[in-house]
Amino acid sequence: MPDSSADPASAADPASPRLQAAISDTVSAFLATQQGALAAAGPDLDDLFEVAERALEGGKRLRAAFVYWGWRAAGGAGSDLTCLLNCAAAVELVHASALVHDDLIDGSDTRRGHPSAQRDFAGRVPDAVEGTAEPFGVAAALLLGDLLLAWSDELYNTSGFRPKVLRRGRPAFDRLRREVVAGQYLDVLAQTRRRSSAADAMRVVLYKSAKYTVERPLQLGASLAQADTALLGGLSSYGVPLGQAFQLRDDMLGVFGDSAVTGKPAGDDLREGKRTLLVARAFDRADRAQRTTLDSLFGRQNLEQADVARLQDVLRDTGAVAAVETVIAELTDAALAGLRGTPIQGSEPRAALETLAALVTDRTA
Amino acid sequence: MPDSSADPASAADPASPRLQAAISDTVSAFLATQQGALAAAGPDLDDLFEVAERALEGGKRLRAAFVYWGWRAAGGAGSDLTCLLNCAAAVELVHASALVHDDLIDGSDTRRGHPSAQRDFAGRVPDAVEGTAEPFGVAAALLLGDLLLAWSDELYNTSGFRPKVLRRGRPAFDRLRREVVAGQYLDVLAQTRRRSSAADAMRVVLYKSAKYTVERPLQLGASLAQADTALLGGLSSYGVPLGQAFQLRDDMLGVFGDSAVTGKPAGDDLREGKRTLLVARAFDRADRAQRTTLDSLFGRQNLEQADVARLQDVLRDTGAVAAVETVIAELTDAALAGLRGTPIQGSEPRAALETLAALVTDRTA
Repeated sequence: MPDSSADPASAADPASPRLQAAISDTVSAFLATQQGALAAAGPDLDDLFEVAERALEGGKRLRAAFVYWGWRAAGGAGSDLTCLLNCAAAVELVHASALVHDDLIDGSDTRRGHPSAQRDFAGRVPDAVEGTAEPFGVAAALLLGDLLLAWSDELYNTSGFRPKVLRRGRPAFDRLRREVVAGQYLDVLAQTRRRSSAADAMRVVLYKSAKYTVERPLQLGASLAQADTALLGGLSSYGVPLGQAFQLRDDMLGVFGDSAVTGKPAGDDLREGKRTLLVARAFDRADRAQRTTLDSLFGRQNLEQADVARLQDVLRDTGAVAAVETVIAELTDAALAGLRGTPIQGSEPRAALETLAALVTDRTA
Repeated sequence: MPDSSADPASAADPASPRLQAAISDTVSAFLATQQGALAAAGPDLDDLFEVAERALEGGKRLRAAFVYWGWRAAGGAGSDLTCLLNCAAAVELVHASALVHDDLIDGSDTRRGHPSAQRDFAGRVPDAVEGTAEPFGVAAALLLGDLLLAWSDELYNTSGFRPKVLRRGRPAFDRLRREVVAGQYLDVLAQTRRRSSAADAMRVVLYKSAKYTVERPLQLGASLAQADTALLGGLSSYGVPLGQAFQLRDDMLGVFGDSAVTGKPAGDDLREGKRTLLVARAFDRADRAQRTTLDSLFGRQNLEQADVARLQDVLRDTGAVAAVETVIAELTDAALAGLRGTPIQGSEPRAALETLAALVTDRTA
């Protein structure tokens, strides 16, 4: 039995500040070892480490929370907690890598209200030869993402778990890393097409978010605690629909979210032309006038606030917003039904996963 | 003792076509398992796999050869060969990832005479919405590099070696992946500065090439065959200077190489403004007129063939070329001296490493 006083999270607060802090501490300790390992290369690498630290700051550590509760759901407990936190932090390293590269793909200047990695790097060479600061920023951010990805692996392998245990977790960890790339690829491919069907949009959601954010982190944690196939399958039946609902909520926030809370400029997803289910549904249901608005404004880089408002109206008036809200509710119900049929060890992990379902689908940031 | 008839390479031909083919076959078999694993995502991923295949085609498989001979140098033999080839192929996956991302950083349209990954991807969406094909190409290449890096790890872990053996190889594999990023970062940082010293240039060479291309692959192979610290240290004393000499030869080919042989447009490194030792030495030794030529032409994107020729003349006339040739010869001698002091198991691996030293420092492509 776990020593409850040492548990970093509870059923009532499953992604607690304490768990978040434990992950941050784990990441910091790892970064310190890496800085030592590369110290011989000299102070020119200092900026690389500083931007790495920033890329790893903050965030809700949701993926780590799912790793943790997957582990608890399989009976993980006690003295293995430190090892488990290392593996959970490894997933956050993967995530930081994905975000840094995502900002490159989207050309985003900000992330969580701060400069994105490429902007940050570009600002660190004030005396750069003319015309080299921006390309440097892009190149450095690309390399930082690679480093974070290589590091994720190193942290996983040096987590402290025995090789036999690590081998059990490998399939989920490997899948997580390849599926997020596949999902992102399908996403950028969709943006080259004039229209995307709802089915295309949901396929992106499945790989880019559902598997990557929820299903695989849960299965990774559970595998590290020797979960059997019944539990792993059950966690899929909960994790996949929940992850889909999570992304659909994210898509809604990308269009309607308060930029002060989300840390991203309002309407950015509309400027980027993100092919979400919300947008696919709006195209499906638009009348002629609404269709004209969508065709002329959606995906335009230079949208004014008034244009964003017009697109928002179309998304609402076509019923696309209501339709997606219905899908989110249905998927959340499906996740909870899946959870009920899953052989979770103990009542606290079950209650925590119930709380998490509400947390990730009903949020403002 | 190894069954010599099964050895994929020999002292006379240490990076033999047979070894290259064995690596290619290993990579192909791995790609097939990956394609199966992601088949559920549908045919939209086909292009991703095709470009991955191309990114992994060809090349001299030098890093794999160093893994192989490191392993042989430590007495590796026989039935473990298949596992070893998997680990060597994993290093080639890392390398393919680095090249794909390097072409993004450099904005290169070609690689080995074929379209670079970003150009290849951009050409695969002929019906793309206007203005989306190029950004798609860049995004897809970025994601491909990530995928190759994640795969490298998966191939290493599923190589067939026991977890205990894999754990021995881990430090070298981890270092290889982080040091190449550090080296690349130092390289792009140097390009924001008006001048780079010879010491700066050699530091980039150390991380980006010497450790990554020669030292760590050798140590990885040796570790997988239970090398002791004397052997690992000896392989460094051979590998580091040899890797430096390798890169200096590469820098010379980047300026003077025959584009028909190198597969890269002549003078590309001069257009990019690569801060090599060759260039640092030319700046050091230039008289006023030569300095004016360097200042006005070096690093200019739109160099004509006549400009390239003028810069080549300055590099020769300042004595920079001769100086670098001397350094290459000295480093190669140092590597061979290091090799003599290294407790290599058996005469064939020793002879092979001698041949490799000549091969990588005296080449035309």
